[in-house]
Amino acid sequence: MDICERSVGISRYRDPAISPGDLTTSLVAVVTDAQRRGRRVIGYGFASVGRYAQGGLIRERFARRLLAAQPGDIVTDAGDNLDPYRAWSVMMAGEKPGGHGERCVAVGALDMALWDAAAKVAGLPLYRLLAQRLRLEVSAADVAVYASGGYPYPDHDLQSLTDEIRCFADLGFTSAKIKIGGAGLAEDLRRVEAAAGAIGGFDRLAVDAVNRYGQRAAHAAATALAPLQLGWFEDICDPLDFATLAAVANEYPPPIAAGEALFSESEAVLLDRYAGLRRNHDILLFDPVHCYGLPGYLRIIDRLTGTGWPRTAFWPHGGHLFSLHLVAALGLGGAEITPLAFHPFCGPPPTLPVTAGTMPVPEIPGVGFEIHQEAYEAFRSLTE
Amino acid sequence: MDICERSVGISRYRDPAISPGDLTTSLVAVVTDAQRRGRRVIGYGFASVGRYAQGGLIRERFARRLLAAQPGDIVTDAGDNLDPYRAWSVMMAGEKPGGHGERCVAVGALDMALWDAAAKVAGLPLYRLLAQRLRLEVSAADVAVYASGGYPYPDHDLQSLTDEIRCFADLGFTSAKIKIGGAGLAEDLRRVEAAAGAIGGFDRLAVDAVNRYGQRAAHAAATALAPLQLGWFEDICDPLDFATLAAVANEYPPPIAAGEALFSESEAVLLDRYAGLRRNHDILLFDPVHCYGLPGYLRIIDRLTGTGWPRTAFWPHGGHLFSLHLVAALGLGGAEITPLAFHPFCGPPPTLPVTAGTMPVPEIPGVGFEIHQEAYEAFRSLTE
Repeated sequence: MDICERSVGISRYRDPAISPGDLTTSLVAVVTDAQRRGRRVIGYGFASVGRYAQGGLIRERFARRLLAAQPGDIVTDAGDNLDPYRAWSVMMAGEKPGGHGERCVAVGALDMALWDAAAKVAGLPLYRLLAQRLRLEVSAADVAVYASGGYPYPDHDLQSLTDEIRCFADLGFTSAKIKIGGAGLAEDLRRVEAAAGAIGGFDRLAVDAVNRYGQRAAHAAATALAPLQLGWFEDICDPLDFATLAAVANEYPPPIAAGEALFSESEAVLLDRYAGLRRNHDILLFDPVHCYGLPGYLRIIDRLTGTGWPRTAFWPHGGHLFSLHLVAALGLGGAEITPLAFHPFCGPPPTLPVTAGTMPVPEIPGVGFEIHQEAYEAFRSLTE
Repeated sequence: MDICERSVGISRYRDPAISPGDLTTSLVAVVTDAQRRGRRVIGYGFASVGRYAQGGLIRERFARRLLAAQPGDIVTDAGDNLDPYRAWSVMMAGEKPGGHGERCVAVGALDMALWDAAAKVAGLPLYRLLAQRLRLEVSAADVAVYASGGYPYPDHDLQSLTDEIRCFADLGFTSAKIKIGGAGLAEDLRRVEAAAGAIGGFDRLAVDAVNRYGQRAAHAAATALAPLQLGWFEDICDPLDFATLAAVANEYPPPIAAGEALFSESEAVLLDRYAGLRRNHDILLFDPVHCYGLPGYLRIIDRLTGTGWPRTAFWPHGGHLFSLHLVAALGLGGAEITPLAFHPFCGPPPTLPVTAGTMPVPEIPGVGFEIHQEAYEAFRSLTE
């Protein structure tokens, strides 16, 4: 096995010349010694979007442990494939409790590549491999999706925002999410109105405050937004400020979404216990890639479904094609797609058109990056 | 300014041939363009002990931001010294809420080096610079310390443990801390008895369960240990498992210590709110180096003293010479010293002898690594 890794910049805007910021993500390739159709099987993964690249932790800690493992430690009992669960245990050996940041992203990027490789070796789309391993019935290979974007534009914000959301609708999306919290409540309400008009209704629009509000600002925003009955109100305050979240949940009847910036089972349990969320209609955004990959994410799902959350409450942040498979295999609510932002991971690819807010899961072996031209080119450059 | 960094392995044992594990830490040197006594001022820092080295994050994210800053962004208004607070803001620019792991350690290592450099430029021991900047009265430059170690030995554990604790007593320590939770309660009680005998009483001995216990094991250990009236019972369960901690606090009257594996103000607030700790006699172990350095640690102190915790409840984990200065400047309870473990940061150096459980703070400019021969040699090799 060989592991290649590279950090790349990613932009929140279709035109990266607009305020690209310094966002980065990690691309990884796990080169196996298995052959399929005369070529070595290579698994691809990336560190999702919205946090930072993890090149140092991947190279210095987690890829190093994988590469130092005995083959028997990371393959199935039958020896015929990688076992991503065993590989995960190898990566996590010696990791201490607590401190759920950064390393969880590094592990998640490698975990995605390991699952991609294992599904390719098995000759199955990832969601079918997952269904097999987890003994789940897979109903449909179409999953609900929504279009995410709507970052503030430095110029002509309302017009550019409206154009962006119309583009989402033209692509087949029936719901969208935009950012708020940066420019004052009056301006946010103008953005919400413009975006809701472009997507076809307030109930089709979610807003994401990017963890910006303190207790008072959260109360003011909740009061202003409640009458609109938006799709959901996301990332309201500091992700660990459960007191503010509980106060909002107590006064804001429409759905609240949380969890994008929580990265572990331990934090998920605290959110469930102390944030006052309503299990019957609030939304959980944990990013599987940021939560130590699939094994970490499954622990969160198991723990929270155990306290009464339905699987349909889970709408994984980021991860895109990988998350589509998880949504399909695990019967989750749906997945986030960023149609224009975060090149080369913007989507959907032309071969997976969105129709009335649903999207087919790639049916080729693995995650399916090979049918996403921009992503595939970025991954291929890792090993060329 | 130039920044050098290197990862080094560190061992829990005086003899690193005994089960060294794969613990690492980062050494950093901030080379300034200031001159003192004809030489460039160099600030030294390290990533404390107990987590991992952070070379990748230091190089790829935080040192990069410092090196890209305009000089005006990281110096005082007068322009006569580095301003570690401003440098901290530069390092943290763009960092998102949540995800308090790894990055907090990288920032803390660099922050230590920045404070060391700033104190050297000012010609003051760090604790005096801190007292100046924070407008605090410094009463004494002697601080309470305890000796930490007592990891299980693979052979002749009880005898080796007893020898180790006697060595602590011979060095002048009057209290010690050992690890439990690895080998079963009966064996732990034998270790506790041996160590207490060697240090001079159960009340002089603290035990650290290294976050190992679940709810049931925590209850069993608390029941067995309560009659001994130990100095404190530390890191009982997963650091975010506040329910278990609260259950123990409810049934275990002697002091409990927590917080070593929490790394942020947000987590500290949750600990205070949900873990049932007793502000009048429990102990807070947050490691300043692991909590985003001094600015992050001060936020924790401010927040928790605001809810009624006395400053004397804070006994910072790790960090050693750096923590001595914080204890002296901020009037905290005391500091942890690892007399034998974690070479080259084992202590105390011969010029800072421990007397009846207290230790002088280095009086030379900076943190004082220059009087700790082993640490200084390790740091010097960064720039040679």
